[in-house]
Amino acid sequence: MTTLELVRARAEADARTAGCYLNPDKEFLNNLFDGLKANEDRYGYPSCPCRLATGKFELDRDIICPCDYRDPDVAEFGACYCALFVSKDVFEGKKSTEPVPERRPIEKQNRAYGPTAEAAIQKPSEPTRTPAKESAVVQQKLWYCKQCGYVCYREEPPYVCPVCKAKRELFAELVIHVVPET
Amino acid sequence: MTTLELVRARAEADARTAGCYLNPDKEFLNNLFDGLKANEDRYGYPSCPCRLATGKFELDRDIICPCDYRDPDVAEFGACYCALFVSKDVFEGKKSTEPVPERRPIEKQNRAYGPTAEAAIQKPSEPTRTPAKESAVVQQKLWYCKQCGYVCYREEPPYVCPVCKAKRELFAELVIHVVPET
Amino acid sequence: MTTLELVRARAEADARTAGCYLNPDKEFLNNLFDGLKANEDRYGYPSCPCRLATGKFELDRDIICPCDYRDPDVAEFGACYCALFVSKDVFEGKKSTEPVPERRPIEKQNRAYGPTAEAAIQKPSEPTRTPAKESAVVQQKLWYCKQCGYVCYREEPPYVCPVCKAKRELFAELVIHVVPET
Repeated sequence: MTTLELVRARAEADARTAGCYLNPDKEFLNNLFDGLKANEDRYGYPSCPCRLATGKFELDRDIICPCDYRDPDVAEFGACYCALFVSKDVFEGKKSTEPVPERRPIEKQNRAYGPTAEAAIQKPSEPTRTPAKESAVVQQKLWYCKQCGYVCYREEPPYVCPVCKAKRELFAELVIHVVPET
Repeated sequence: MTTLELVRARAEADARTAGCYLNPDKEFLNNLFDGLKANEDRYGYPSCPCRLATGKFELDRDIICPCDYRDPDVAEFGACYCALFVSKDVFEGKKSTEPVPERRPIEKQNRAYGPTAEAAIQKPSEPTRTPAKESAVVQQKLWYCKQCGYVCYREEPPYVCPVCKAKRELFAELVIHVVPET
Repeated sequence: MTTLELVRARAEADARTAGCYLNPDKEFLNNLFDGLKANEDRYGYPSCPCRLATGKFELDRDIICPCDYRDPDVAEFGACYCALFVSKDVFEGKKSTEPVPERRPIEKQNRAYGPTAEAAIQKPSEPTRTPAKESAVVQQKLWYCKQCGYVCYREEPPYVCPVCKAKRELFAELVIHVVPET
């Protein structure tokens, strides 16, 4: 079991690292921390307190807090889907939050909650370069940010580079050419 | 087209992530944001508002904001070349900014503006381990920070590790040894 | 030789990036900066001012500031082993620091100070996938964060993902499958 203290410490550290802020409304924030703690106790990871998780890590990955959609939502709407993380203007009361539409792609929602959910989980032993036979399979690749060089291993590149804040369009697949060992 | 709001939100998030501050002079800052927006609209990426870009991504990469030189300049002079990003002491008014010399290596300036500019751009299909025939070719490699393990794919390692702030000298090339698939 | 200014600038930038704070006691902090500067001048890297370094980079790597243990210690105890970095609550005076036990594993301490210290350093030319014949050998691997995809090359995954703050348990070894060049 995690503690509310650890949940809060993580959120604070994470907001600072990502360059955003926690919602200034303490009571609202505490309710979200309760939700994060409940999810972490239940699933083993703190999935978004405002979305339904499946309990299957691979299918919930994009909605584990901080979710994949946090950074573009804070940039565009001043808050993430939950309003746990907000922009500087919202934090300082210069702006109020707007309703944030669900940015999670419908295919990911279907993959998580639809009939093929079980089949979508890639077996860890399979090489990741095997062509997907099922369009729903979770297929990970190496990506790099063409601006700063940040490397990550994900299904898709992030919306925003966590290092230099370049947009997703600046990521490209990293194909490694090697000399085979003899 | 981007918006001034997005330009500002990115700069704010980026300063927090990198551990520096935006120039406290609002008017000065707004002029730089105008320049960044103009460059992003023109080239598709926010190249440095104080330097001449070529419009060719590969040749401008090191001067896309935040430029490669920002972190060592803020550490050494209290401000980046533009004075868009400043140190804590400058932000708090305890120190004034000094003139910041151009740290961009003359070879990169030549490569961007000189007669071989066209030839310098690596074709994406070429394997990156092919030895450079032209010294001006943009050749990327995998690097890792020997202190914290951060991995990036760039022409040269960054001046400062974005994760642990180790100096460039602590980066080494990451050579991947693999068992070939049979 | 480094300067106290650079030592402080690095610590400030690093605290912001990691999402923690510098100890608010200025005099205490200055003593730690003196220690970091002395270590950097002596060894070439700023090893922890509160721990004994060997002067051999590979054996000291985990105790170079910010040490590997900083993030879990700040999360759990409100301060790192030295109390150079502290949590938000400690920074704001809402909480005092507790004594922080040494989290560095006894095997790493033995490896650094014990009789096999010399043998533990991996030769750079050796492929990293060679099975360790000596349990004490420093063996690095590629790891990725299953939550956000962050990739690093280290002996072990970090305690906390520097990007999304996921726990160490969410890291897995990244095995790269490639098609050999023909």
